[in-house]
Amino acid sequence: MNEFKQLSQEMRQAITAEMKAVLNVIEAQPDLFFGMMHYHMGWRDEQLQPANVNAGKQIRPVLCLLACQAAGGSWQQAVPAAAAIELLHNFSLIHDDIEDASPTRRGRKTLWTIWGQEQAINAGDAMFALAHLALHRLVDRGVAAETAVHALRRFDETGVRLTQGQHADMDFETRDNVSVDDYLAMITGKTAVLLSLCAELGALIAGQDAETVQNYAKFGLNLGLAFQVIDDILGIWGDESVIGKSASTDILTKKKTLPVLYGLSQNSNLQQLYQQETTDDAFVQQAIQILNHTGARDDATERATYYSETALGHLEAAQPSGPASIALQQLSAMLLQRNF
Amino acid sequence: MNEFKQLSQEMRQAITAEMKAVLNVIEAQPDLFFGMMHYHMGWRDEQLQPANVNAGKQIRPVLCLLACQAAGGSWQQAVPAAAAIELLHNFSLIHDDIEDASPTRRGRKTLWTIWGQEQAINAGDAMFALAHLALHRLVDRGVAAETAVHALRRFDETGVRLTQGQHADMDFETRDNVSVDDYLAMITGKTAVLLSLCAELGALIAGQDAETVQNYAKFGLNLGLAFQVIDDILGIWGDESVIGKSASTDILTKKKTLPVLYGLSQNSNLQQLYQQETTDDAFVQQAIQILNHTGARDDATERATYYSETALGHLEAAQPSGPASIALQQLSAMLLQRNF
Repeated sequence: MNEFKQLSQEMRQAITAEMKAVLNVIEAQPDLFFGMMHYHMGWRDEQLQPANVNAGKQIRPVLCLLACQAAGGSWQQAVPAAAAIELLHNFSLIHDDIEDASPTRRGRKTLWTIWGQEQAINAGDAMFALAHLALHRLVDRGVAAETAVHALRRFDETGVRLTQGQHADMDFETRDNVSVDDYLAMITGKTAVLLSLCAELGALIAGQDAETVQNYAKFGLNLGLAFQVIDDILGIWGDESVIGKSASTDILTKKKTLPVLYGLSQNSNLQQLYQQETTDDAFVQQAIQILNHTGARDDATERATYYSETALGHLEAAQPSGPASIALQQLSAMLLQRNF
Repeated sequence: MNEFKQLSQEMRQAITAEMKAVLNVIEAQPDLFFGMMHYHMGWRDEQLQPANVNAGKQIRPVLCLLACQAAGGSWQQAVPAAAAIELLHNFSLIHDDIEDASPTRRGRKTLWTIWGQEQAINAGDAMFALAHLALHRLVDRGVAAETAVHALRRFDETGVRLTQGQHADMDFETRDNVSVDDYLAMITGKTAVLLSLCAELGALIAGQDAETVQNYAKFGLNLGLAFQVIDDILGIWGDESVIGKSASTDILTKKKTLPVLYGLSQNSNLQQLYQQETTDDAFVQQAIQILNHTGARDDATERATYYSETALGHLEAAQPSGPASIALQQLSAMLLQRNF
């Protein structure tokens, strides 16, 4: 078992325990108000009976705890921040599912399809408020008030950026003129700033100086950007047996990912092709041919490499230490060294 | 001009200026993301051109500043808290309008009817995050980190209570067995806890001891409860020329207000009547006759009197001083001494 697997297993248990404590913080006997949130977290089923759905890798909160430990802190002290980040992420998923009209998430019905949009909007709001209360528990673990205020401020600045990213993502669906820069700003908000916050808060709680904290933040930011760009590449050129979905899905749905936006900005044939109402296999083949021709794959690969190297450069500059440092490198490799 | 009018006029200007600063805190040049929020606040019209819609009395943030001043503080220092509370209130209005499918608010189209539910949900989320950033500005005004953390924690505990109140309010629409106690818990969450927070944070920022802060909190809580119960009474027995809407509206729409729930718990004739699908003038007359007969009006009046006296008792116990103290009493009188 490598360092990442070993540490993250222990950490995930602590994160889940902390989140469960927070989601009962107001009432001991959970009613439908808390029950809806418990369902979303996979702790209860549709009838609000106990359930135990796989919570996934919980990459974000684990990254926060690894950063804290690697920066010389004790990861246990950062558990409230990790729980807060995971709850923030889940609040955004509840609302995203309504906004995107998604009927299922990870094979389970989404909250709004069971209890209606109105209650689901409100449940998301409640989880957002509770995510803050999770972060307040830092004080209970001996973190100084100044540090807690700083963490809370960064938490909400990130919350604003998340909603800006989501705003842009929805806005793009109605626009024809989305540029590569628009796109990069959007994924910065939707994906990268949250990973950045994870690493930043870990280092902050460890008591690191401002420069080191910034190195952790930039490590997380670039890790997030690299991850998303690699995802975009795999969505077009990925090995279906590896990524688990048809590699042509992003083309068939005319999803505005980085390579497509790059291609559209360079090639009028692609612009014409994308004005077709329906798509089929011939459409996919033609689109990929043009993308290859315009160098869209090379452009995306160059960006992914740049973001990856920048991320790892900042991690090195932060001088992480101990087994958590090795685990951070293993986590980065997992996210970055997917075949593309 | 009395103390309340004089002080509140000056305060409202400071509150609005603070909110405007916060809603541009991330970007100097507001785009649609901020534009939607500016529209909701009445600062821009549907085309995002500058507008100046009457912001109303802003009772909540003014209460916060008056409490701070009356508790021996400087109201200017509490302006970030007042702005945060008003933004919190407005975030909840944006989402309530979606949840209640309300097409208009104060004679203007609601956010979701112009820009769609998806973007409106997200705009509400953004305003919730920004409300927190408003509160963080306390630190910039010299408030100690410990006090700021305390204020932030109470802010989010109140946020959870608000969503619990909204959850209950929506839940009641689908239930036949709502008790008077259920109802009081619901209005505590939906109305009273926010007024309580206003007074509490004012006194907290003024540096008062825990007991005095609690007296302010209980003053606000009971003021909110009294206000809502009086509203319920006026919604059935009020003078139409005073309350500005037909006094029978609450009966015609079979709204589950306190007197109705009391009546339903006491009288099976009313239960039968309320099972009628349609309502008309005869329905209203019959319902009011039964309500009068069961003592529903007396019950509500007794409660309103109890909450009013409790509120004023806590205000007295808090020993407020100066013109702001007189203004607080004038504000209370405005809210409590409506003819019922």
